[in-house]
Amino acid sequence: MSYATEPAHMTASEAAGLIASKQMSCEELARSCLARVSARDAAVKAWLWLDPDHVIRRARELDKLAPKGPLHGLPIGVKDIIDTADYPTTQNSPIYDEMRVGRDAACVGVVRGNGALIFGKTDTVEFASGGRKAVTRNPYDPAHTPGGSSSGSGAAVGDYQVPLAFGTQTGGSHIRPAAFNGIYGHKPTWGRISREGVRMSSMTLDTVGWYGRCVEDLILVGTAFRITEDHRPVTVKGLRVGLCRSPAWHAIEPGGALALTTAAERLAAEGAIVEELVLPDPFNHLIEAQNIIVNAEGGVSFLPEYVNAHAILAPDLRAKVDNVLGTTPEALLAAYTLADSCRPVFDGLFGPDLDVVLTPSAPGEAPMGLHTTGNAIFNRMWTLLHVPNVGIPCGFGPHDLPVGVTLVGKRLSDARLMAIAKALAPIIDTEAGVRMRRLRGTAN
Amino acid sequence: MSYATEPAHMTASEAAGLIASKQMSCEELARSCLARVSARDAAVKAWLWLDPDHVIRRARELDKLAPKGPLHGLPIGVKDIIDTADYPTTQNSPIYDEMRVGRDAACVGVVRGNGALIFGKTDTVEFASGGRKAVTRNPYDPAHTPGGSSSGSGAAVGDYQVPLAFGTQTGGSHIRPAAFNGIYGHKPTWGRISREGVRMSSMTLDTVGWYGRCVEDLILVGTAFRITEDHRPVTVKGLRVGLCRSPAWHAIEPGGALALTTAAERLAAEGAIVEELVLPDPFNHLIEAQNIIVNAEGGVSFLPEYVNAHAILAPDLRAKVDNVLGTTPEALLAAYTLADSCRPVFDGLFGPDLDVVLTPSAPGEAPMGLHTTGNAIFNRMWTLLHVPNVGIPCGFGPHDLPVGVTLVGKRLSDARLMAIAKALAPIIDTEAGVRMRRLRGTAN
Repeated sequence: MSYATEPAHMTASEAAGLIASKQMSCEELARSCLARVSARDAAVKAWLWLDPDHVIRRARELDKLAPKGPLHGLPIGVKDIIDTADYPTTQNSPIYDEMRVGRDAACVGVVRGNGALIFGKTDTVEFASGGRKAVTRNPYDPAHTPGGSSSGSGAAVGDYQVPLAFGTQTGGSHIRPAAFNGIYGHKPTWGRISREGVRMSSMTLDTVGWYGRCVEDLILVGTAFRITEDHRPVTVKGLRVGLCRSPAWHAIEPGGALALTTAAERLAAEGAIVEELVLPDPFNHLIEAQNIIVNAEGGVSFLPEYVNAHAILAPDLRAKVDNVLGTTPEALLAAYTLADSCRPVFDGLFGPDLDVVLTPSAPGEAPMGLHTTGNAIFNRMWTLLHVPNVGIPCGFGPHDLPVGVTLVGKRLSDARLMAIAKALAPIIDTEAGVRMRRLRGTAN
Repeated sequence: MSYATEPAHMTASEAAGLIASKQMSCEELARSCLARVSARDAAVKAWLWLDPDHVIRRARELDKLAPKGPLHGLPIGVKDIIDTADYPTTQNSPIYDEMRVGRDAACVGVVRGNGALIFGKTDTVEFASGGRKAVTRNPYDPAHTPGGSSSGSGAAVGDYQVPLAFGTQTGGSHIRPAAFNGIYGHKPTWGRISREGVRMSSMTLDTVGWYGRCVEDLILVGTAFRITEDHRPVTVKGLRVGLCRSPAWHAIEPGGALALTTAAERLAAEGAIVEELVLPDPFNHLIEAQNIIVNAEGGVSFLPEYVNAHAILAPDLRAKVDNVLGTTPEALLAAYTLADSCRPVFDGLFGPDLDVVLTPSAPGEAPMGLHTTGNAIFNRMWTLLHVPNVGIPCGFGPHDLPVGVTLVGKRLSDARLMAIAKALAPIIDTEAGVRMRRLRGTAN
């Protein structure tokens, strides 16, 4: 069922179908997206770099070519910590003002080679780590954050400015903005997508992901990365769903609790077997281990700026290099060992008794203010476990902002997880039409 | 004791001392290195990019500045898979011919910020992974390989063209060339040095390291990366040295066996307690695990070139993307789990019974021919274990080419390992003068 009345409102899958059958040109889609940006950019501020003339030229070139791949003509936003050949990559840092490297990051090269139109660079928390926040606002309420660090990518897709965007996650930078902007996000298994050309903040944690407006869109991008679609049937009746409140449950807010309960109830009503999943005790220490690792490895990652641009490197990033936490080598190795030992235990839970895990995407709705991007506490354990996550919208919270839930699979089961998500999303997310009507009212 | 008769022959530590005390200018050192390159480049072919005028200008600028750090004025070669602001980065691939990114890799930024002179880009195996070999020749015999993939970096330091160079290791690309070129190499603990801006081939394995002509040089570079020198005394008498023939011993050749035996005997003669170290059985499977991981993760890393430059991507790299090994997700995860479980076991061996591990750097001498870079089999396990290695020359093999040994510590013990290496190197490596006389005879 499509709610789209014009190209920018379409899902990537809908648009790809129309482009493939020549019912729509790449230029028509690009112009529609540009019109939406034009109408909304002053309010949402999702973009750091966007050249409409360049976008039109690229779209016309794509219209001349035989289809290059499944993403032919689809505009994609790129988080500005990811290098692109055709825009600067500033990482939202004064240290890299106007920096142009002229070479695509691996993930950009792959989607470009599959026909995607690199639309522009989206605002981000500085280095996707600390320092400056994005100026981006939540498309549902400009007084609220869109989340972060993938702020602009989340907001641009949520606001119908582009159908697809790349984000990254080290703590909760990809899945949290998905929830806050009412969109879908795939954070793949660690290592499954190259991070070449993506600003590194943590060797162990950094993960490239993408946003779309339905599971089919996420699958479409995945095919470009050779995550081949899994066509084996998924039977919701009898599907074993592990409801994991997670060791972070103490931080839950009404919006997050409502999303989780609603998703669980909707799935149970369709015959899924939703049972509480309590992870073994060592898992309770993974959030702290993630904190140790992200700080220690951040100290390695920000050393160049510490040495060469000390005065303008943000204090919270300098603190990582200075190891203000006082992390010892033994503590860092213990954090690695804990994570390394938990990963196969988690993977081993899947089997006859468990098909998929259902867990919160965030404590609740997007917080008020742009001084914060919200709390990553519900995402950090999963990032450290290297497991694939898919963020799915699920209703609205008490302030009428979107909330969402996350489905989790075992490592390298991305294709199967997406097949399950495709079956469950229409049950969990029944408000896609509401979201579009809400935002369509805003302009354009 | 210095064997140097001119600046290019000096170790980095010697040169740094003379520059700091203003007995030598940065320009004098740079000109001496350029003269050595000029005399030897036709034979050794270590450099892909080297602009003598640029080097002189940089040296003069450094002579105007107050010392920027411990590496002030020291020329350093940079393996051409590592980005530099002031030279192209071609990765020895036709796909990136003349590519200039204009931004330093993290490791380059750190040494530049500490005063190092980025001298030029050294030849490498294509992408440090497969495809084209470097044209570089072994400085001791041009009919032999200098090893690889850090071919040009190893040969340039070995041939007295620059005192320092960066290399990288995914299998044995850093430590093996150290042995083949009669130089010292530090492969730090995985994660200790940022890989930002370094061509990625394996998320789990890629490691940045550096070469010098003595342990003090390696320590000097380490201080720029905040590997603070460990000044606690090392007493050779009674030092517990674990002699590890490694699960690869079946591949040993006369030169490698001679180096290991010689090093062990020299250390024992000085009172070290050298005892055989046999690792537990699971370690026997780490070499195969490394092979599984490097191929599977290579498939991820070379996907952009596979998509965008298929016809000129080398067949052995295309094979990784095509997964011709047929690695299943289960096999890859098993390889991860094996490595993850062995790492703390290895670290735990260190204590009252073990101070340092002594193991081969390579099967033997550099093989004849440029069609091979030699066999990484003695390095791969250590790379996968993420442990720090220091390569130390130890005599000459039956063909009168340099051979070497490796000292290994536990993860994140880099500073202590270097302190031990500093104490042991003068015992293990008694041929530094022989090496210089051998090569000084070649020219200049």
